[in-house]
Amino acid sequence: MSIEIEDLATRLVAGERRALARAITLVESTRADHRAAAEALLDRLADPDRTALRVGLSGTPGVGKSSFIEALGLRLVADGHRVAVLAVDPSSARSGGSILGDKTRMERLSREARAFIRPSPAAAQLGGVARRTREAMLLCEAAGFDVVIVETVGVGQSETLVSRMTDVFLLLLAPAGGDELQGVKRGIMEIADLVLVNKADGDLAAQAQRTRADYAGALRLMRRRDTDPEGIPAARTVSALTGGGLAEAWAEVERLARWRRDSGVTARVRAAQAGQWFEDELRAGLEALLASDSELAARLERLRAEVETGRAAPGAAARAALDPLVRALRDA
Amino acid sequence: MSIEIEDLATRLVAGERRALARAITLVESTRADHRAAAEALLDRLADPDRTALRVGLSGTPGVGKSSFIEALGLRLVADGHRVAVLAVDPSSARSGGSILGDKTRMERLSREARAFIRPSPAAAQLGGVARRTREAMLLCEAAGFDVVIVETVGVGQSETLVSRMTDVFLLLLAPAGGDELQGVKRGIMEIADLVLVNKADGDLAAQAQRTRADYAGALRLMRRRDTDPEGIPAARTVSALTGGGLAEAWAEVERLARWRRDSGVTARVRAAQAGQWFEDELRAGLEALLASDSELAARLERLRAEVETGRAAPGAAARAALDPLVRALRDA
Repeated sequence: MSIEIEDLATRLVAGERRALARAITLVESTRADHRAAAEALLDRLADPDRTALRVGLSGTPGVGKSSFIEALGLRLVADGHRVAVLAVDPSSARSGGSILGDKTRMERLSREARAFIRPSPAAAQLGGVARRTREAMLLCEAAGFDVVIVETVGVGQSETLVSRMTDVFLLLLAPAGGDELQGVKRGIMEIADLVLVNKADGDLAAQAQRTRADYAGALRLMRRRDTDPEGIPAARTVSALTGGGLAEAWAEVERLARWRRDSGVTARVRAAQAGQWFEDELRAGLEALLASDSELAARLERLRAEVETGRAAPGAAARAALDPLVRALRDA
Repeated sequence: MSIEIEDLATRLVAGERRALARAITLVESTRADHRAAAEALLDRLADPDRTALRVGLSGTPGVGKSSFIEALGLRLVADGHRVAVLAVDPSSARSGGSILGDKTRMERLSREARAFIRPSPAAAQLGGVARRTREAMLLCEAAGFDVVIVETVGVGQSETLVSRMTDVFLLLLAPAGGDELQGVKRGIMEIADLVLVNKADGDLAAQAQRTRADYAGALRLMRRRDTDPEGIPAARTVSALTGGGLAEAWAEVERLARWRRDSGVTARVRAAQAGQWFEDELRAGLEALLASDSELAARLERLRAEVETGRAAPGAAARAALDPLVRALRDA
């Protein structure tokens, strides 16, 4: 490892914000030398004993995610926590916007010394988003943040990506009635630990309670997962505006995290998550390997097209794609 | 391709049942020479113009899956269809039993010349189950079956596996009330096109209607997928015993399949499924490649263990695991 990486690691572990920001920029880069440096840095910082709480949060635009994160974050900081907020935003690649691009959306939280908010880079691609966010999360933990909130707008597969890197998953909803209800992507019911109906204040309070009851009813139709204690998943109301319900919701998050830690679920899930990341990296590495040789890459794309149009069988095509590798390895 | 494979392919396409049974035995085998023969056979039979309807069906034990499939299958056969039934049963590896092991469970259907029922092999493993079932399905289609029903008991990830190889997914439930309701695995709400509440006859008829309404309510909370026409997902009642609701349920399946075909959804989804199978085969091929060399395999397992226990970062470990391949390819 170069002296530079060692120096960056040391400053990051000491909690120096500029070192953390620079390290995240490094993992976001697609340059080959930056990637190698990022991998060396992450390997240097790997620590099995780190126990930050990783919280995923999803919700469609307009439900008040920023206000909720700001209200919750300020409360956590006041309680002595150090809070990092990251965003998974595959839509920013298309719209040019970014859910956390404008820090003023969490102006008060961003001024806190014990909080760190990282906007989503503008031109991220989904595959890269998962790796980048996962690695940024590990860097925040190495820098001493004990709560990491990963926010997603829930486009495409992004909730699944986020649930695969977090310990507890929150779904934030707005009060709704009747036909407006079809707002939740189906897969989210599988991964949500807590459904939080926001804006339970003023005129919307009663409607928020009804929405909560609707979701509580839907959740009751589903089997308890083996990662859940009694009472999870639950549906609750909160108000980012008044702060109502926030303490109770966070207490539920902590109770759930404690139960999962004590029962061994967290250790098991984190090992499985890490194993999955390893598989993802292996696959990305193989793809890079196949793409590094133009003849091999062209062969792979031709075979993939034949499989997708039904003209070739997947097994035979994969065998043909890997054949040059097999021969190279045999002759090595 | 050997003459034997060509002969087997010809007899299978001619609809010879023994050739189909033998071909499925071939794709179920783990022997290397059988695998190579199976891949050659599947590649020989690949045909982009095949249009059999692939139906996935899930339901926990006791909901009456066999009776439902038998009643539906007999009706389809009477209507001129040729119906194949396959099982994805990861639990058989553990229990030694098999959901379709006892053909007497569908005695009448199994006697039909226009039906083909394939029991699940006893000692299947999940990874192999997906490949085997997918390949058996393609063989049934090549043999002229125009409806293939893939049944699963819904253990672990099996519904997801089945939904990734079928066009329409049915969830079969039994009538239930109150606390009994927590019976559905969460992920299934994401993939179900039709929720069918069985046993809507006699004393259970009213309870079946209530269960149907509960699920219809839950489905209304979720957003429509871009693969769905208006009104899908839907919840209906059926009775395998009296045949009530079966014609309507099948009409809905055909309406949905037609809509998806006409709107281009089927072509898009099938291309994506085939692409995913290619990725799966590439990964399996890579794993076989890494495992073929004992030094490489030991290295991979050591690195995986380090990642899972948090002592190494996934990216750096994957790079280290692939390094011998990179060097072999560079020196080839």
